Amino acid sequence: MNAQDTRALVESRLAVIPDFPEPGVLFRDLTPVFADGEAFHALAGALTAPFAGRFDVLAGVEARGFLLAAAASVAAGVGVLPIRKAGKLPRAVLTEAYALEYGTAALEVHEGELPPGTRVLVVDDVLATGGTVGAAARLVERAGWKVAGVSVAIELDGLGGRAALPDTFETYSLLQY
Amino acid sequence: MNAQDTRALVESRLAVIPDFPEPGVLFRDLTPVFADGEAFHALAGALTAPFAGRFDVLAGVEARGFLLAAAASVAAGVGVLPIRKAGKLPRAVLTEAYALEYGTAALEVHEGELPPGTRVLVVDDVLATGGTVGAAARLVERAGWKVAGVSVAIELDGLGGRAALPDTFETYSLLQY
Repeated sequence: MNAQDTRALVESRLAVIPDFPEPGVLFRDLTPVFADGEAFHALAGALTAPFAGRFDVLAGVEARGFLLAAAASVAAGVGVLPIRKAGKLPRAVLTEAYALEYGTAALEVHEGELPPGTRVLVVDDVLATGGTVGAAARLVERAGWKVAGVSVAIELDGLGGRAALPDTFETYSLLQY
Repeated sequence: MNAQDTRALVESRLAVIPDFPEPGVLFRDLTPVFADGEAFHALAGALTAPFAGRFDVLAGVEARGFLLAAAASVAAGVGVLPIRKAGKLPRAVLTEAYALEYGTAALEVHEGELPPGTRVLVVDDVLATGGTVGAAARLVERAGWKVAGVSVAIELDGLGGRAALPDTFETYSLLQY
């Protein structure tokens, strides 16, 4: 399915919720998209298509990024590096903190999980301020791998996420709001 | 790939960590399996094979279950119902609490996310005491859907998980320890 048809199909399934998680915010909920096999798999494929042949593994950012990265990994024939919230991984980790609206959070990967130089495409559901995705990409670089790009289902234009990521990261979003 | 070959491949990739998350526990870490496309996709396929033709959607339990359910959903041609930790879903939810070693946790799904009677195969990484998977299956029933079965990568025999699930749930595990 081409990107335009995928966009229309995904938008037809999205649930739009006013005032979540706080008043004034319009939340776009991908849950009904995930529950529809055709829409979900088309969305997953759309996230890797622009990077075809240029990545060795997909990194999924916990937790919704896991769904998209895992579904996309099948058609791409590659594995998934789970980028986890702090404290979940059992072996030696690298940790990268990032700012939330109130306080900070952190993401982790295992040291040495992939061979040096592995090309990693970072996948998540939403690019908002770029805090989470940026931390994921920095982790990939610190671990000795290469960021093949950043690919998300939804980009919220007004929050400056793209500008917050280094220019060296090629960034793709299927839908922009 | 048949179940025996899949078992051997997955076991060759598993990382085994002594004394995690606490002394005396031998933790089997699937992260290197996820990172290996061949092993990951064979594992995902093995979880749905015993239920072929008997489910309409896969339910993935947050967060590692998301990886397995999403990968398996592609070959099966179905969607994924994310069974989420409490407080993550934006619309009206059903909540099911379950016991942890210390305290309780809860899982949630959106009310009405799937049509009544939808056959849901619940997928997770590990069956231990059965607390998490049991709560996920109860949620599916309370929401008006049918539990097509429970399928996990790893079953820890000594923890009574299978016995804790209702006999009416057909339960499959690829690996038993």
